[in-house]
This record gives sequence, structure tokens and C-alpha cells, in this order.
Amino acid sequence: MTNSLKISRRNLLGATVGLMAAAGLNPKSAQAQAAASVTAPAAAPATPAAKPLPGYVSWKHADSMIVHTPTTIETKRSAIGSSIITPNDRLFIRNNLPAPSAADIGDVNAWQVNIEGVGKPQTLSIADLKQMGYETMATVLQCSGNGRGLFAGKPSGTKWQTGAAGCVMWAGVPVRAVIQALGGVATGMVYMTSTGGEKLPEGIDPNAVIVERSVPLAAMQDAMLAWEMNGEPMPLAHGGPLRLIVPGYSGVNNIKYIKRLAFTKEQTQAAIQKTGYRLSPVGEKGDPSQPAVWAMDAKSWVTSPAPDNGPVKAGALQIMGVAMGGSDDIAKVDVSLDGGKTWQAARLVGPDLGKYAWRQFVLATNLKAGQYDVSCRATTKAGVEQVAQSTENTGGYLNSGWVAHTIKIDVA
Amino acid sequence: MTNSLKISRRNLLGATVGLMAAAGLNPKSAQAQAAASVTAPAAAPATPAAKPLPGYVSWKHADSMIVHTPTTIETKRSAIGSSIITPNDRLFIRNNLPAPSAADIGDVNAWQVNIEGVGKPQTLSIADLKQMGYETMATVLQCSGNGRGLFAGKPSGTKWQTGAAGCVMWAGVPVRAVIQALGGVATGMVYMTSTGGEKLPEGIDPNAVIVERSVPLAAMQDAMLAWEMNGEPMPLAHGGPLRLIVPGYSGVNNIKYIKRLAFTKEQTQAAIQKTGYRLSPVGEKGDPSQPAVWAMDAKSWVTSPAPDNGPVKAGALQIMGVAMGGSDDIAKVDVSLDGGKTWQAARLVGPDLGKYAWRQFVLATNLKAGQYDVSCRATTKAGVEQVAQSTENTGGYLNSGWVAHTIKIDVA
Repeated sequence: MTNSLKISRRNLLGATVGLMAAAGLNPKSAQAQAAASVTAPAAAPATPAAKPLPGYVSWKHADSMIVHTPTTIETKRSAIGSSIITPNDRLFIRNNLPAPSAADIGDVNAWQVNIEGVGKPQTLSIADLKQMGYETMATVLQCSGNGRGLFAGKPSGTKWQTGAAGCVMWAGVPVRAVIQALGGVATGMVYMTSTGGEKLPEGIDPNAVIVERSVPLAAMQDAMLAWEMNGEPMPLAHGGPLRLIVPGYSGVNNIKYIKRLAFTKEQTQAAIQKTGYRLSPVGEKGDPSQPAVWAMDAKSWVTSPAPDNGPVKAGALQIMGVAMGGSDDIAKVDVSLDGGKTWQAARLVGPDLGKYAWRQFVLATNLKAGQYDVSCRATTKAGVEQVAQSTENTGGYLNSGWVAHTIKIDVA
Repeated sequence: MTNSLKISRRNLLGATVGLMAAAGLNPKSAQAQAAASVTAPAAAPATPAAKPLPGYVSWKHADSMIVHTPTTIETKRSAIGSSIITPNDRLFIRNNLPAPSAADIGDVNAWQVNIEGVGKPQTLSIADLKQMGYETMATVLQCSGNGRGLFAGKPSGTKWQTGAAGCVMWAGVPVRAVIQALGGVATGMVYMTSTGGEKLPEGIDPNAVIVERSVPLAAMQDAMLAWEMNGEPMPLAHGGPLRLIVPGYSGVNNIKYIKRLAFTKEQTQAAIQKTGYRLSPVGEKGDPSQPAVWAMDAKSWVTSPAPDNGPVKAGALQIMGVAMGGSDDIAKVDVSLDGGKTWQAARLVGPDLGKYAWRQFVLATNLKAGQYDVSCRATTKAGVEQVAQSTENTGGYLNSGWVAHTIKIDVA
């Protein structure tokens, strides 16, 4: 273990590059892009260098996406539409390891997941799961590092702005239905630990690279084993054929190509859990004593007008955005045109897709020429207000502060 | 007028073919396909001849679609997923005239619509409309002829089964917000009459071919001028850049590329309203005295298992489907495994997207080997029960009878 823990994320790049080559990606360009994204100034999102979509997601809508690297692809702030659900071809990509190919997967319905730490452990295929229960649920899928590029200290990692997030409609079987059929969770288990089916590079301690995450047992209650995403069989690029959805928890906890769902007494020893994805004080390395990156906070941001769309015409203006409550319904969203000095209540629009989805909001206003600092601030039903500033951390995780998400709009 | 009314739909095909050639489609193959669809037995949907997608919708998911003709493309029964919303690339196509090209449209935000029959008639661009109001709404979009292929008498026209329908999330401005800004509906108006922006063939009375429909004024209340469909700018193939959405009303009333929205004392004289889309007694031609094809009825159908997916394995089985209330919420759906002799209550699943959307339902059952006649029957909140049989009519419109929608499932 000790050795493997010393392998930094940077050193892992070599192994990842090999996998990417195997997956038909261009590792050279990936490395160059990864380097570029590290040196790019955080304030440059409005005019990103246009990089082409990698082949495995060539079906994405190119004009809506910002390609940071082949495995980190962001939705432009202005490309989040007004229809609540983020279409598959506009949803961000963030894969810790390259996605498997269709050949790797084979027959989708034969994909198997081992269920462990239950009364009657069992290996189940997707075909089995499809007859064990059925639910449809909308959740915000948000990369743990979404907003990293808006932290003042410029933490290393992909400089996501707002676009490593989308609202997705999933269909699958509730985890609790599966567990119930298998005799319930074994006594004394504290975590739900899930393992992704990525191919691991050889010659490295698997714990250094495996995508395996533990979340508190309570997260099982609304979790789902999902095989459908927005009405289509789950794309491999997004974790198909089977993905664990843990509503309210950030992206990394929603295990792709899940091959093992276990109830455990301890958190996994995988580096991605033990030292990775921790809320570490700035300058300190990840450590199991620090809080894990799990539940998401209340957060909101403006999607239109977007700064990259250029000046806005003076006069009537609809300011629109999205607001999420983490694991609670949105009660209200306030919008400020002066950087938070004064606030006006926005109107929530569109169907309410539940506490794990986001809500759209709109403020109809009328602006004279000038520059405006536009902020928004969500409040949940339980009365939790979006924070002004998230505590910065080494990994740049879970940035939900409204100050950092404030945008300047030029009205001409 | 008199002359134009004598032009039958069959005679119009010549004009349409010319337009199709102009739009880059293959009119020969279209004619052949139209002829083929007329002579195909109604019971043959499970194994349709695979025709390629026409170029203007080459982005559709080919395996999910049945191409009847280049302008009539159906979603396979089994391709309706479990995520409520029908993705754009799986939504049916039914265009009365070929869709305009991007070159025809030019700058999307400059597209104009004339608003007439209001206090202050005005021409508004999409850019104008975008600042007048904003709403998001899910509706069932269903071709007036969906289910035509399930009528016993085999009415002429495309033999749609269940797949000329989808549930779509629209975004745009409520018509009532626009009308309010323009001084309200002028006194004495009874209908909302809308005109599509299709290019019309020359040398024919425009009224014979123009897509112009009148609906009762009350339909304005929840109607929308929509520029977005499922999170993407409205595709031209589906009526972009601007489409009128009349919730609860069948497809033809949801005018594509709308260029005129007028409040009128009379229904339009266009053939598509005057004689077309009428509930005419079988054998009789359309006539203004007959009911217009307007509001949709309560209806439901099974989507999984689908007959075209082959035999089902004996044992646990989730029977799934969709149910719409027309303009009312779904209160319950019952499923029968014996062709309607006995019924069991299905479970409604997933978020409720409102009274104009459809609801998903599921019945968890356990079946021994054998053949089952699977029916489903929706009931709305107001207590309206899906009819057993719709009255057949010359055009084969609005077939919502549960008997005709019964499917046979082979369990092996």
C-alpha cells in the first residue's frame, strides 16, 4: 500500500496514456492538452482554444463543449438550455480512466455486477436486474471539481467553470430493491463500496488506480443501478452499460461500468478514496482523516446571458440559470445585479423533477447600458442558503460559493 | 376556393414531390414508399422493411426508427425508453411539407412572426420574443394519425402504430404573455389561427397546401411559442426555429416554422383545416361540419416488452408503458394480461411532468410460458377512462382505443 500511495496523480498520467492509446485516443495530444490546461489562466474560459472532440465522444455537440483533455470535456455555460434535462450530447465528460469500448463490454444485458455484504451475496446480470424493480429519477450529475477554475488560489486540476454538471433522467433499479431481494444489508456494515469495471494498467498496485468509492450506507436509500440515461441505453462514455447513481453525491461517487456493489465495514483502501477526493487544507496532501468528497451543497449559477456571448442589448432582459439543493428541494433563488449588495427573488420555472434535480430560474429585468455583476443564490426548503464562499482545498473540490460564480455582463 | 378544395391529398403528392426534390430528398423513393405503406398489411409492423433515414434527419438514431417515407418516420414501440422524455434523435417525424433548410431560415434570432387579431398587431422576431417571457413545459407530441395502423378498417395514410408520439420538454414564451404585451385578444375573436412558414409549391391555390390551422381560443391559455426542444435549439426537422405548441392538441395543430399567429372570428379556409383533419364518418370526405381533429384523448400503450423483441423468458417480468391524459393528469393505469377480462393496477413511476406530459407505468408480474394478450387502460384525474374503441373515421385519426392497442406477448 505504502508504495502505491506515493504515486501522484501526475505520475499516473503515464499509465493513463497507455490506456488511452489502447482506447484509440491520441495520448500525445492528451498530454499536451493536460499540460495546457494546467498553465491556462483561470480567467480565460470565455475564449477557450477550440480542441476537437475525441473519437469516443464524437457524437457530442461540438459547439456546446469545451475540450480540456480527451477525458475532461465541459459544457459551455451558455449551452445549458432551458429544458431542465441536459441532453446526452451536451453533457460533460470526466473519466478517471478511459471508457471501455463496445468490444470490451460485449452483450450489454450480460454485464454482471457482484453484490456483496448482503444476506445472500449474488452475481447479477443486467438482464436479472431489469426484472427486480424499476424507477426513473432525475439528478444533478456534477463533477467533484466543478467550479475549480473559479477558486482564487487556482488549485491544480482541470479548470472547470460551471459546465462539469448537468441534470439527467436515469432509469434503472433502486439499489434498495436489489438489496431487499438479497436478504438485506449484512449486520454491521457502514459503507456502500462500489467498484468500476475499467481496465487497469498493468504493473501498478491496483489500489493506486482502481475507481472504487465508499459512501455512507444511508446513501443507499435513493441510489440506483441505472442502465438508461435520458431515454437512451447508458452510453459507455458515461458509464454504461450499468452505472451506480448516488443522488446528491458528486460525480466520482457515481461509479461507472459498475462490477461490484459491496456493503462494507470500512472505506475502501483505493487511493481514489483514501487520499484522493479529500477536502484537504490548501497545501496539504489528501489523508483519510479529512472529509471525503461526498454530498454536494446548494449551488446555483447563471446560464444566460453568458459572458462568452458578448454584450447584451439594453432593455428587457431575462436572466436565467439553474439551482440545485444538493439533497433538498430548492425553495427560492435570489439574483443580484450589483454583486450581492441587493437581491431580487427570481421565479422558478418548469416542472419540479424532485430534490436531486436542479430547478431553473428566471428574473425578468430591464437594464440600462453599463456593466453588471450578476450573482445568484439558492436557498433550499430546509432553509440552507448557498454559501458566499466555499473553503478552498488542495483538490479544488465542491466550489459552490456564489461570490466566485458571479459574472460580469456588459450591457450596451 | 371551390377548385382548390377538389384537389385531393393524392393529387397533392405531385406538388409535394417537387418540394421534396428541392429539399434534396428522393421523390421517387418517397412515392414508392408512400405506395408501399398503403398496401402494407396493418399487422406487419414488427418486421418493417428497413429504409434508410433521409439526409435531413440523418442524425436520428436509425435503429430506433421506422422510416415509412422521408416525411413520416416512426419511433419503434420498443425504442421508447423509461426516462419519460423522448430524446430528439428518437422522436417521430411527420411533416406535411418538407422542412426548410438552414439556408432558408438564415439567422435564427431574426425569424419573424406576425401577431394579428390583438390590440396592437406587431411583427416580432425570436430575439424579441426571448425577452417577453419564459417557460418550460412538457407535452405529449402526437401525430393526429398515431394508431391509424391499428384501426380495423385500414384507413389510407401512414400506418402508424404507437410511435408517432413522444413526450417533449419545450422552452419558449407563453402565448398569453405575448398577447398581454400586445393589448390582448381583439374583441369577438373565437379562434387562434397559425400559419407555418413552409415554402409552398407554385401554381396551386395556396389554401390547398398551406399548413394553417385554427384551434379554439381557449387553447391559447397554455400555448407556447417555443424555440427549444429537449435542451437544444428547436431542430428545423421539428419546426425550428420557432414552433407553436398547443398542449393537449394533436401534432398538426402545433404549427412548425410559425410565421403568423392570428386571433380570428372564423376558422381558416385552408384545406388542411376545412376538409382535412376532420373526424369524417368512414367513406365520407372531410367537411367543415364534422369535428376538427383537435384535442387528444386519454390513451396508453405498452412499450416493454414489445412484440418485435421476440419471446419473453418465463418468470419475473416488468411490463412498462406510457399513459397520457390528453389535457388532464393521469390518475391510474390498469393492465390486463388476458385481453381485458381482468385488470391489475400498475404503478406510476418517475417524476410527474404535468397534465400535458405522459406518465410511465410499470406492472411487476410473474408469467408462466404461454401467450398473453396485454392491454392497458388509462384513467385521468377527472375520472375519464381510456375508451375501449375509438370511432373509426376516414382519415384514421385519434385512435386511442385500448382494444386496438392490445399486444400479444409470447412467454417461453
